[in-house]
Formats: sequence, structure tokens, C-alpha cells
Amino acid sequence: MEKQAEKEFVKEITNMEEDFPRWYTDVILKAELVDYSSIKGCMVIRPYGYEIWERIQAVLDRMFKETGHKNVYFPLFIPESLLNKEKEHVEGFAPEVAWVTMGGSEKLEERLCVRPTSETLFSTMYAKWVGSWRDLPMLYNQWCNVVRWEKTTRPFLRTSEFLWQEGHTVHETQEESQEETIRMLNIYAEFAEKYLAIPVIKGKKTEKEKFAGAVSTYTIEAMMHDGKALQSGTSHNFGQNFSVPFDIKFQNREGKLEYCWQTSWGVSTRLIGAIIMVHGDNRGLVLPPRIAPLQVIMVPVAQHKPGVLDVCREVLDKLKKNYRVQMDERDNYSVGWKFNEWEMKGVPIRLEIGPKDIEKNQAVLVRRDTGEKTFVSLERIEEEVGSLLEQIQDNLFQKALKNREERTQSATNMEEFISKLEKKQGFIRALWCGKQECEETIKEKTGATARCIPFEQEETGGKCVCCGEQAQCEVIFARAY
Amino acid sequence: MEKQAEKEFVKEITNMEEDFPRWYTDVILKAELVDYSSIKGCMVIRPYGYEIWERIQAVLDRMFKETGHKNVYFPLFIPESLLNKEKEHVEGFAPEVAWVTMGGSEKLEERLCVRPTSETLFSTMYAKWVGSWRDLPMLYNQWCNVVRWEKTTRPFLRTSEFLWQEGHTVHETQEESQEETIRMLNIYAEFAEKYLAIPVIKGKKTEKEKFAGAVSTYTIEAMMHDGKALQSGTSHNFGQNFSVPFDIKFQNREGKLEYCWQTSWGVSTRLIGAIIMVHGDNRGLVLPPRIAPLQVIMVPVAQHKPGVLDVCREVLDKLKKNYRVQMDERDNYSVGWKFNEWEMKGVPIRLEIGPKDIEKNQAVLVRRDTGEKTFVSLERIEEEVGSLLEQIQDNLFQKALKNREERTQSATNMEEFISKLEKKQGFIRALWCGKQECEETIKEKTGATARCIPFEQEETGGKCVCCGEQAQCEVIFARAY
Repeated sequence: MEKQAEKEFVKEITNMEEDFPRWYTDVILKAELVDYSSIKGCMVIRPYGYEIWERIQAVLDRMFKETGHKNVYFPLFIPESLLNKEKEHVEGFAPEVAWVTMGGSEKLEERLCVRPTSETLFSTMYAKWVGSWRDLPMLYNQWCNVVRWEKTTRPFLRTSEFLWQEGHTVHETQEESQEETIRMLNIYAEFAEKYLAIPVIKGKKTEKEKFAGAVSTYTIEAMMHDGKALQSGTSHNFGQNFSVPFDIKFQNREGKLEYCWQTSWGVSTRLIGAIIMVHGDNRGLVLPPRIAPLQVIMVPVAQHKPGVLDVCREVLDKLKKNYRVQMDERDNYSVGWKFNEWEMKGVPIRLEIGPKDIEKNQAVLVRRDTGEKTFVSLERIEEEVGSLLEQIQDNLFQKALKNREERTQSATNMEEFISKLEKKQGFIRALWCGKQECEETIKEKTGATARCIPFEQEETGGKCVCCGEQAQCEVIFARAY
Repeated sequence: MEKQAEKEFVKEITNMEEDFPRWYTDVILKAELVDYSSIKGCMVIRPYGYEIWERIQAVLDRMFKETGHKNVYFPLFIPESLLNKEKEHVEGFAPEVAWVTMGGSEKLEERLCVRPTSETLFSTMYAKWVGSWRDLPMLYNQWCNVVRWEKTTRPFLRTSEFLWQEGHTVHETQEESQEETIRMLNIYAEFAEKYLAIPVIKGKKTEKEKFAGAVSTYTIEAMMHDGKALQSGTSHNFGQNFSVPFDIKFQNREGKLEYCWQTSWGVSTRLIGAIIMVHGDNRGLVLPPRIAPLQVIMVPVAQHKPGVLDVCREVLDKLKKNYRVQMDERDNYSVGWKFNEWEMKGVPIRLEIGPKDIEKNQAVLVRRDTGEKTFVSLERIEEEVGSLLEQIQDNLFQKALKNREERTQSATNMEEFISKLEKKQGFIRALWCGKQECEETIKEKTGATARCIPFEQEETGGKCVCCGEQAQCEVIFARAY
């Protein structure tokens, strides 16, 4: 019976080594994270998926507030004339915005774009709010939905509408704005590594890849299980690129008017896609304990036998105090079916208790990440669960790191670049002369883009992988989602 | 100095007895809750206003989850054909929606409406998700933005875009859907009374005033300081009005296919408007302690004198453990200016400590609601603050209740109705025959609409206030925001 159910479940998911994108789609649907809606490119986030987002929000929101940021809410719509104020910005975003042209039955005098990002709106208000250096810094953030009219979409990774947070700050000096930009990048990196168990590489985007309107864009880049990269969070230093056209001036300490210095930074529901693609396996989702909606699923074995449910409930009450735990008491599903369902949903620990366990005063703990079974005494159940959750969290991080290390190669010329990437999908570390031409040639020949100029430069002083001229810096190239 | 600052501050707010709407606008801007944006009818919610919303969200979200509801996220856009599926619903909402007609540079094949509410989207997915009675009830909620293209807008009360939560549930039986409708109405009432200190009247909307597409709409109605009503939360029973056109069927316990029973319910940022208009006074905002972003503001007196700031910081550290407290140490503002600013912002308690207080080992507590000063020993500061916050919370509720009682009158004929409402703006309790004609006549003659048929019927068995025929029920009429 168990074997049968198992087979049925597993055959519904595509093998990840055969077709990773299809495996991804199978998992998000089967684990009930999202569903497709009738609106092209828009997803419905179901309770299990949304709970992951709520946990991401809770942790990040606390980190933002601890560093002095406050939440606000800005309008959904941006008048066309406002979007047009910063030239590079509008060129970057106009091709992919949704336009509102009618209100009720009336044609609007000016088209409104549904916000793809809110630099222009924040800048308008900052121009009104900032008076003197005493008002600075202004450190605001908003949690909201944004719309980018994408041609090809994939749930969480690229959707026409998505949820995110966008921080927007104004500063007195260039140095302070740069400190803020890096501070927020570090918060993203810490969050990804500590909570999502995803190792990330911090670096700077090339001119070609930076945000439309920014002076510099910084990024955290993660490697997915299949070796492709996912940009997982960005932090931008705008310099005075917005404060000049939007006229955001402040009276400085010498009493003179000066333009402000700005930043913005964001992460989105895309992080959920990263969790799935970094940790998942052929049995479904694998969720890091710190972010999992449910950390322990209790499955009573032979639950109709006298005493089983009573003991289970006692254990449940104990564990509830410190962990996110639930008991699956459904009587219309077999134990094997339940095992498979909760594995699919990526719950870090399965806790089984049956009549034989009760005799021995023990419970069975099964790790989702390794499948390993341990028998633990009911007296020590709380500590054992706690320590196992920590082990799982750590193991997931180490596994992801190992995958990244195995799939990171270096190349000194294009032949090597192409053949290494062909043999093993992953990151290619290579020296680069700094010319956009070479960046474009590499993309054409390999499909890999410059993910970032990593802060940690391992090699310097050689020749550009593409043109062979003097290199400026080391770059990480990869094909990306 | 203090007197001068006080005068300057106060003269910037319109007297509430002279012009209540202008007083309202002055207060929300001066207290920095919102600002106007360049998008007609859309507001920017500033940090102080947004913190109130975050507190409202935190409490309600907990109440929803305790009653078994889960959060989800549905798309922002609704295809026109989908909105058209339920006839009454589309007739109610189509005149006030914003339409997206372009994506990037391409004209869309079908117009998309920016959601004014999401019954149609939820119904489409429920049709897909509901299979058998075992899947029921489905109890979902979402926190999001919605857009209704309003002609006349006022921040928080009526804006083109606003933030809200919308619960959408599906049930096995009519009885269960009715229980859910009333359960959520009760949660709203409890929340308004316990947290916002706003007494509300629970009742049913008349046919004319009910939600487009509902079988019955229930409401909590609050009275503002000026005697006008504000609909503060609604809960709808849809019966099978959506499940039939959207084909949401389930296999019942007898194995037969049956249409589901649905509800929806919502409250919005409008609640912030209610807090302001119920409790505010001529010195600005007055916030109920349970919802105030800041419960205690500490203002050191003669802060340059040795020891003052040290003692203040000790007290701050003590209070921080249990209360939301902040110290205003700014050295470029006078104490009088600070007093006025924090009164404007409605902080429940001001705590002053100066050199003389330190000699006496005391602090001064000043209540925002009554202006009353008390001197308390520093040893007992935590208990005193706690008990004072509770007294303030209770007093605000009692004051609002008293205002409502004083402004609630009854009328047995139209002459009485008109003259009483003319003399004293407020609620008119009157018997009604149930005919829409009379409801419309009353509105034409008095500007008052049927707010609700209250659950607590005080008078029964008489004649309709309008036509004099046999009455069906008692109704509360009022002019409303």
C-alpha cells in the first residue's frame, strides 16, 4: 500500500535531472504553493506559498526596522509624465508597463502606468518633505505589488505581477548613500544565508546589467541546483540621478542648498523560487527549518489503536510551545500517502508514533533532507527536535555551497569557457577587460551573462577571457533565470 | 515661549466645531499621517499613518488566524469577461473601475480591470479547488490594495486606491455560511470596540444598501464626533449567487453534486479615518493606547542640566520593556513646541522629567485625552503608566459612547425626523415599512440614508416613519461619510 502510493506520487513529478524547468513547475503545483490564474502571467499564491512569504516578510521587516527604516505606502499608479522625468529609468521600464487609460467610462487625460517600481513617486514626495540636513536621512520602505508586463513568465521567478519590498532612502552625503547601499546588500546576504540556507555571492553589476537610472547596482547571486544563476536581491546607489531631475534639495550644514543622495533596494517573491530550486529534490520541496511554515509534521501510525492519538496529542502540545508543528489525523488517507504528501511539501521533520513506539516510550524522527531515521525517547523529544532542525538548516546550506563550489569553474579563453560550461552548467569565473563589447560577445557565444563583479576577487592582473587584452577585474558569468 | 508656540500650533488647525471636514484635513496633514500625491484621489501613507495600519493588521490577522483563516494572494487584474459573470456585481462595480488597455506598447486583446474587490477571481479558483465536502470550508483572506475610481475623495475615507483585507470563504451549507458571515461581523465589532475604542452598531443593510451580488450584507456602523455615520466594516452572505454562475460545485456527503455557499468580508484603511474622527479634538489626534504607534512620549525638561538625561534614559529603558515609548531629545525645539507636536500626534501619555522632579524622585504624566496631570514616584512608574493607558483606553470608549447616545434620537413621523436631525446631527431610530420608496423619500428629504437594521431592535410594532403604514422593523438613519 505504501509502496503503491509512493510510486503514484513520484511518477507525477518530472525527474529533476531530466527536465529541471518541468520538475519546478510540477513541484510548485503539487506542493500547492501557487496556481495559474486566468490572467496571463499572473499567479495565485496559495496558503502554503503565502505562508513562506509571510515568514520572509516578518524576518526582513524586523531587520529593516532594526536598522532604522520605516514602512510607508505609495500609490499604485504613476502618471506618464512623472515616469518620463529620468531618461534612463523610463527607457528601461516603459516597454514593460501596463497602462491604465480609462477610469469608469471616461478616458483619462493622462495615461497612468501601474508601478513597475516607485523611484519616481518617492522622489516627488522627497522633494516636498526634505528641507534641511536635519530631516536626513529619510529611510523608507514599502511592501507592495508591482507589475512588469513580461512576455515569458514562470511562477515566482518572473511574473507580470509580483510582491516585493522596495526601500527608498535619501541622504546628506555620497558616502552615506554608499554605506546604506552596502548595508542593505549585506542584510539581504545575511538573510539568504542564515534563513533560506542559500549561499550567495555579493558583487557589483556591470554597466550593462545595472538598474535603469542607477549609478551602481549591487546584487546577491545564488546558484540553483542545475547550475544556473538567480539574481536574488539588488541594492542601488542613485547618486544624484533622481535628485537633480526631481529637484530634491536640502539646506546643508553650511546653510547652502544641495542635491540629496539616494538609494533603493528590493527583494521579491522570487526568493521563494530560489528556495525551491536550491533545495528541492525528486521527492518535492525541501524547506529550510527557519522559513518553513511547518517544521514538524506528526503522523500517528495505526491511529485507530487505543492510546496512539492520546500520546501523540501530548507530544504535540509539548512541541507546539517552541516549534511550528501539526498533526495529520486524517482517517481517509493511508500513512504512506501522508508520508509522501508531507515530503512533497518539504516539511523538515516527520515525527511518527505508533503502538510499538509507545511501548518503547519513543518516537521516530525522519529528516526530509537526508531521509535518515532516528529513534528518540519521548522525554527528550523537545531538545532532539530542536537540535535536528538546526542540523537540517546547516546541512542544507552546506549542500548548496558544495553544489556551487563543484559547479564553479574558471576560464582563461573562450574555448575553455565554452567547453567547461558545456560540460558542466554553472558559474564561470573569468577576467574581463571592462568593455561592453566583450560582455556581449560572451553572451552571444555562450548564453551566459555577467552576473556580477564579485567583492571577493580571486584572480587579478591577467588578460580578458574574450579579447585577451589587459583585464580590469574578475567577473562571474552564468546562464540565469 | 510655550504659550507662543501653542498659539502658533493651534491656529493652524481649523476649529472642529466650525468646520469638521477642514479640521479633519488639517489634522491628517499636520500629524503627518498622509500626504496628497500627484495622482488624483490617491494618497501617500506616511510612516506614522502606516504604523497605525500595521497595528490594525497585526491584531486582525491574529484574530482571523485564530478562527481558522489562511492568507493568500490573488492577481491585481480581472479580465472584463470575468467581471461580467455575475450581473448585479458588475453593475455595481463597472462604473468605478480603472481599466488597463495596454501592456508595454501593445493593445490588449481584452481589457483588464484593476480589482475593486476580488469575488470573481476567488470564485474562479474555488471552482477549480473544491472537489468534495472534505475540502470545505475553505477560509481564505488577503491583505491587498484595491482601486475604485471615485469622483470625490478624502484621505482614508474614500480614495481611488486603498488598502484593505478581503476574506472569501466557501461552505458546505447555507447555515455554515451564515454563521461565518456573523462570526466575522462580530470579530470586526470586537476589534473596533476593544482596540479602536469605537462603539459600533451591528446590523443588516437594507436591500438598497447591500453589496452588489450579495444575498445579505451586515455592517458595523460608527458615529463620528460630528454625528455623521461611518460604515466601518461589512460582511456579506452570497448564498449561491456566485457559485452558480462560476460553477463551484462539490460532492456532498451523499455523493451528489451541489453548489457551494459563499461569504466575503472586509475592512480597510478607512478605519484610520474613523479613529481620527471619533477621538480627535481641537489640539489634533487622540489615539487609543492599544493601537497607538507610540504610547508614551518622554520629554526631558531643561535637558541640558546635569543628570536630567541620565534619569530619563533609565526610565526609558524600564518602560521600553512593556510599552511603545520614545524620548524626544531634540535640542533645536523648545519644550513647549514638543508638547504641542506630540499632542497633535495624539500620543496617549506625555511623561516629563526635569531637575525638580528628579529632586522629588518623581515624573509628571499628562493624559492626552483629558489634559490631566499626575505626579508619580519613579519607583512605581511602570505600573502607573500601565494603569493610566488602560484608563485612557476606557475613557475614549466611554466618551465616544456618550456622544453617540446624546446624538441618537427617535422619530415617528417625517416632520419630527427632519426637525430633530436639523437641530442635532446624529442617528435617527425610526420604524420602517420595508419599501424602498420610503427609504428613497427619506434620503431625498433629509440626506440621511438607512445605515442598518440594527440587531437590537428597540421598538417594534408601530407605523412607518415615512408612509405611516404597518412597520416591519426599526432602522437607523443618518447622514454618512
